[in-house]
Amino acid sequence: MSNAFWSPALARLEPYVPGEQPRGQSLIKLNTNENPYPPSPRALEVLSDPHLADALRRYPDPESGELREVIGAHFGLTSEQVFVGNGSDEVLAHSFYSFFQRDEPLLFPDITYSFYPVYCQLYGIDWRTPALREDFRIDVEDYSGAAAGVILPNPNAPSGRCLPLADIERLLQLQPQRVVVIDEAYIDFGGDSAVTLIDRYPNLLVIRTLSKSYSLAGLRLGFALGQAHLIEGLSRTKNSFNSYPVDAIAQRVAAAAICDSAYFKACCDKVIASRSWTTEALRTLGFDVVPSKANFILARPPGISAEALYRELRARNILVRYFNKPRISEYLRISIGTETEMQALVQCCKEITGKHAGGTGAL
Amino acid sequence: MSNAFWSPALARLEPYVPGEQPRGQSLIKLNTNENPYPPSPRALEVLSDPHLADALRRYPDPESGELREVIGAHFGLTSEQVFVGNGSDEVLAHSFYSFFQRDEPLLFPDITYSFYPVYCQLYGIDWRTPALREDFRIDVEDYSGAAAGVILPNPNAPSGRCLPLADIERLLQLQPQRVVVIDEAYIDFGGDSAVTLIDRYPNLLVIRTLSKSYSLAGLRLGFALGQAHLIEGLSRTKNSFNSYPVDAIAQRVAAAAICDSAYFKACCDKVIASRSWTTEALRTLGFDVVPSKANFILARPPGISAEALYRELRARNILVRYFNKPRISEYLRISIGTETEMQALVQCCKEITGKHAGGTGAL
Repeated sequence: MSNAFWSPALARLEPYVPGEQPRGQSLIKLNTNENPYPPSPRALEVLSDPHLADALRRYPDPESGELREVIGAHFGLTSEQVFVGNGSDEVLAHSFYSFFQRDEPLLFPDITYSFYPVYCQLYGIDWRTPALREDFRIDVEDYSGAAAGVILPNPNAPSGRCLPLADIERLLQLQPQRVVVIDEAYIDFGGDSAVTLIDRYPNLLVIRTLSKSYSLAGLRLGFALGQAHLIEGLSRTKNSFNSYPVDAIAQRVAAAAICDSAYFKACCDKVIASRSWTTEALRTLGFDVVPSKANFILARPPGISAEALYRELRARNILVRYFNKPRISEYLRISIGTETEMQALVQCCKEITGKHAGGTGAL
Repeated sequence: MSNAFWSPALARLEPYVPGEQPRGQSLIKLNTNENPYPPSPRALEVLSDPHLADALRRYPDPESGELREVIGAHFGLTSEQVFVGNGSDEVLAHSFYSFFQRDEPLLFPDITYSFYPVYCQLYGIDWRTPALREDFRIDVEDYSGAAAGVILPNPNAPSGRCLPLADIERLLQLQPQRVVVIDEAYIDFGGDSAVTLIDRYPNLLVIRTLSKSYSLAGLRLGFALGQAHLIEGLSRTKNSFNSYPVDAIAQRVAAAAICDSAYFKACCDKVIASRSWTTEALRTLGFDVVPSKANFILARPPGISAEALYRELRARNILVRYFNKPRISEYLRISIGTETEMQALVQCCKEITGKHAGGTGAL
């Protein structure tokens, strides 16, 4: 069909392509950084609350007041320092609109979350991408000079590498007039959060999600933490887009999940232990594994291309993420699943790389 | 605090102000057009599905495939003619971005849903507002000439007046090169839907919500119906903003609600009957009531200002909507509640307007 009805801005977009979500198949799914453990039982209990019928009939609290209080209390902040949205992708989109629509380019690493340039296109923002070092490290000194702001994930994706807080603080000092967004989607798996810097830096916005460490990717709940003037800015954008972004069920389930700290910590600890085990096991097979503080690892296989290994694993019903992009096309991003799933992955990698090496030798 | 960190575009926004959602009070709430009856029991049953734990752990289907098939089947369309979003407000926002960002002004009535000019500001769209006729009628002949497109609710809000399909068709013919959005949030309460025109008009986009006729305002589920090229446009914008806008629970609850046609029809019939009764009862008291096909009425009280009546009702724990705006500042918008609630409203109106008339006489 014709697209004569599309606005010129729409015709120019190059939308984000999310990881595959196969339906109705029995797969070991290690491709979208989901948590292998179920959500908190206390969060699931909310679904049997008999008051939900009336909560669904009415509009939800447009400001998600109780949830923001719970999140604030959890981080030692006030609810005026908390913004919640329909997944951290929505919170990111509103942040780009609110803070980064300026004449200068936005700065983010050349290898990072691939949604960032999409948001820039959506809102007509120019961008510049300082290159990661050879070992996928971010050097924050690259982020000085005239800019609309800075955004980076910490830990970064898909490398899994984490910056120490001293580097984040240096970055905030390099751009004192601009907002620096630290996207902490993966911080709960071993990194140091920048939340402790919020009181001292009016330009710091920390973005979080319940999709990974809280096992709630299906709920769509993300939030931002920062000084009140940044939160008010996000709120203005939200109230010009959708007054009620977080539904009545999500507000309640999210609050219950955040309150269940013991369950949360136990799940994170299990993921961290499986990450260590998998890293060592793959290194023993000859893989180059980037040191990760996230719930995934970036690994380069020995004696076989990353794309071929991706296909071989897929044929064995194991789904990982392959990026056909410069610098990382020889690596696979592997989400951390259960112990059993990671054992199956390592066993398959052993068979495939062993067979492949043998096959190569025989040629 | 300073807002030096806000982008210039953000600083210019004048956000939408939603109707009040009082917490923890016992009120007869007739201010935000919610349905007084609970959601379908079949929709609520979804919440006890034991598979929800796993559905919440994973990312939801980003394209809401099954829900779109259910909606398509319900309307005699294919799933490629259905777009779903996080409430119809989000679907509206994406429609403004996708189709109305042009050099010409967007056209919508001077008295209508007050979010439309907010979306225009969000995306830098100019607009022009042809005036409703004295009796709040839309004359579609006012919507000709160079334009970025047309948007109007049918029935309109807050008048409740509904255009016949012949007028919608005329409008589509007046703007053959531009998208015409018919916002059918209230169509299930007695109007004729423009969905039947979709096959013949490539410029028609119909937007719906589950918030009113399906009693699911708390779920946040809206959708758009139109030819595939318009749906693809919305999908591109969505995939540049948030890949997963509809959570795993909402996809399932919405599908179950739409399948329960008998319950849906019974609820709509009860609202329509209460609207007729309330209209007649208020007219008997001397109110001017605009003929409505929606789940609310716009009514001008006799012998007392609308604002004073709003306050008097509030003092009696009845909440209605008062708009301090030109042309409608002498009217109240009253959502249709249960029979008992509407009897209480009419009784209070009788006491207040009677007392007021008496009081005035005594001065």
